[in-house]
Amino acid sequence: MADAIGYNMNTRLYLDDLLQGQRFVTRTYSVDAEQIKTFAYQFDPQPFHLDEEAAKGTLFGGLAASGWHTAAITMRLLVETGLPLAGGIIGAGGEISWPNPCRPGDILKVHSEIEEVIPSRSRTDRGIVRVRSETRNQHDQAVQILIARLIVPRRIDKASLPTGPME
Amino acid sequence: MADAIGYNMNTRLYLDDLLQGQRFVTRTYSVDAEQIKTFAYQFDPQPFHLDEEAAKGTLFGGLAASGWHTAAITMRLLVETGLPLAGGIIGAGGEISWPNPCRPGDILKVHSEIEEVIPSRSRTDRGIVRVRSETRNQHDQAVQILIARLIVPRRIDKASLPTGPME
Repeated sequence: MADAIGYNMNTRLYLDDLLQGQRFVTRTYSVDAEQIKTFAYQFDPQPFHLDEEAAKGTLFGGLAASGWHTAAITMRLLVETGLPLAGGIIGAGGEISWPNPCRPGDILKVHSEIEEVIPSRSRTDRGIVRVRSETRNQHDQAVQILIARLIVPRRIDKASLPTGPME
Repeated sequence: MADAIGYNMNTRLYLDDLLQGQRFVTRTYSVDAEQIKTFAYQFDPQPFHLDEEAAKGTLFGGLAASGWHTAAITMRLLVETGLPLAGGIIGAGGEISWPNPCRPGDILKVHSEIEEVIPSRSRTDRGIVRVRSETRNQHDQAVQILIARLIVPRRIDKASLPTGPME
């Protein structure tokens, strides 16, 4: 059932629907050199993200995507097919790391797991969900690990709402 | 002196040059609605990043930049005028949060401070520097706080290197 959730864009999950251990997998995304350079030129203009030859003499040993490019691609995958949350994917923050470089030719997919569901004490209409999202390449190596704190609305119990005018 | 370092692109700092408490400030960067929508369309296609009207009914209450867009802008500012590190700005990972939304019209500037300098035990040629970078708007409100772990090379002591051929 968790598998099905990941691919059904019509399912919208509230805090009350989420459980520790639930998993979601996105579609794949192909990264090429042109995308890597275009992003880097705009946001991270360093030799190892811009030019194959210049990248050889650096710590990366070859062209690699900016970590923020990997983060942005991960977000796109999560928004499109990864986490069908009611209210959208709204991050309060998180921890991020890049255990392996993302290279031209990589085919990425994001594997997410709900780590914790924390109803808000002060706001009864929402809570925080801690989600671990691993962005893996075609060799199943993690190019990014993100442990995000997402703000998720609660399912409103209509019976408990004040009665409004008829529509 | 710390102020001067931030603006001199010819200064390249090694691990040995960095000290806890050193500060660096970037130039400013103006964010507009068009940039916010362009980034969102490509990487974070959610209503509150794409459309002023649709954003009104969401948690953001109006158009706001994707957090990953703020992160990407922050990186550009750090690369261009923020942290003149030898070897470039190479992140191993970090913690990120977005305390306030970044809005159209915001003028951003990044304030960084070295929190810790950690020479590697296994690799004598490098170390990790923990840097806190606050991305602030024109009202001095933080729109992003990033505590990054950066990989920084050590200054090589030429006297200790094996003697090579004369050039």
